[in-house]
Amino acid sequence: MKLNERGLLVVLSGPSGVGKGTVRKALFEMEGHDLVYSISMTTRPPREGEVDGEDYYFVSKEEFERRIREEMFIEYAEFVGHYYGTPKDKVDEQLKLGKEVVLEIEVQGALQVRKKAKDAVFVFIAPPNKEALYRRLLRRGTEDPETIQKRMEKAEREFPLAHKYDYIVVNDEVTNAADRILAIIRAEHAKTERSIYKYNQMLEVK
Amino acid sequence: MKLNERGLLVVLSGPSGVGKGTVRKALFEMEGHDLVYSISMTTRPPREGEVDGEDYYFVSKEEFERRIREEMFIEYAEFVGHYYGTPKDKVDEQLKLGKEVVLEIEVQGALQVRKKAKDAVFVFIAPPNKEALYRRLLRRGTEDPETIQKRMEKAEREFPLAHKYDYIVVNDEVTNAADRILAIIRAEHAKTERSIYKYNQMLEVK
Repeated sequence: MKLNERGLLVVLSGPSGVGKGTVRKALFEMEGHDLVYSISMTTRPPREGEVDGEDYYFVSKEEFERRIREEMFIEYAEFVGHYYGTPKDKVDEQLKLGKEVVLEIEVQGALQVRKKAKDAVFVFIAPPNKEALYRRLLRRGTEDPETIQKRMEKAEREFPLAHKYDYIVVNDEVTNAADRILAIIRAEHAKTERSIYKYNQMLEVK
Repeated sequence: MKLNERGLLVVLSGPSGVGKGTVRKALFEMEGHDLVYSISMTTRPPREGEVDGEDYYFVSKEEFERRIREEMFIEYAEFVGHYYGTPKDKVDEQLKLGKEVVLEIEVQGALQVRKKAKDAVFVFIAPPNKEALYRRLLRRGTEDPETIQKRMEKAEREFPLAHKYDYIVVNDEVTNAADRILAIIRAEHAKTERSIYKYNQMLEVK
């Protein structure tokens, strides 16, 4: 029996190359949870095959900027001329339904979310050591040495930010990491501050 | 990979009749953990078959009182002329070995521990409703109606103390409750405040 019926906003973050995507994928493949992705909103035009409300919510620049002014994003950023953001109302909708909404975002974005979503759960995914991160970046094979060097430097600047997160999960083995995140979600639901309201009702505590 | 190598002191508590013992037993039968009981110290003479250092640490009244003065107990209490207590040094020994030390104690004792063991994890085991607790107390069949009435009244006074715990776990189904406690233990190890030291070493964060 789960005392907290509202879903959790789970923010998975960590330096690029740490395997956030792989861990998130493994997490969604596990049993016994009710996880959903958060769908981003963007001003970038849909690519072939992309479906509005599935891959992204596609909106105009004017619409996006209106939403920024009205503080309707948990976080947003601009990349190469287009906006990308996490719409607050859509996330809230899912949380109310009891779904755990998973955000997989960059370290800077996560720290933005920290300010707007006080009760979200922040998980920093860490490499088991620097070499592992470097090897993963190399293995991708999609980037030139200079870009890889830049990513490593960015990671070095991000490592010290882990202390701002609630949990640190080492991605030494993907299933292990995903398993630990699932344990974190279960434990967070049992936390007294999330449970006490329903608990008091249940046992008629005045 | 577990960043926190020290074991956790896990305090399981809740009103009598809630099934603390059954949950603890189910917990110890589960796979994938390194749990140990905390062995109490007592001035009560050993019963037949009881082994010193296994069932209890048996000591004299003088020795026990010396240890009280020297603040060597995490918690202690007196019942019908005998002392019972949790020796701090023995618990620390196990924690250093990376074992999770489980204390199953009464609500008042748990609140004593709270003051002495700041980094312990406090789990309040709750009945799914009052009737369930009442039925369990009746089912024991070992006590007269008056004692049962007294226990229910004590439980009523203890229900509001749940907010002082870190987690509330409902014992609606024993395996479920034990499973959730195991998730809490796994999650607590990943908590940033417990992980950051080794994390900083691992990634050479200054």
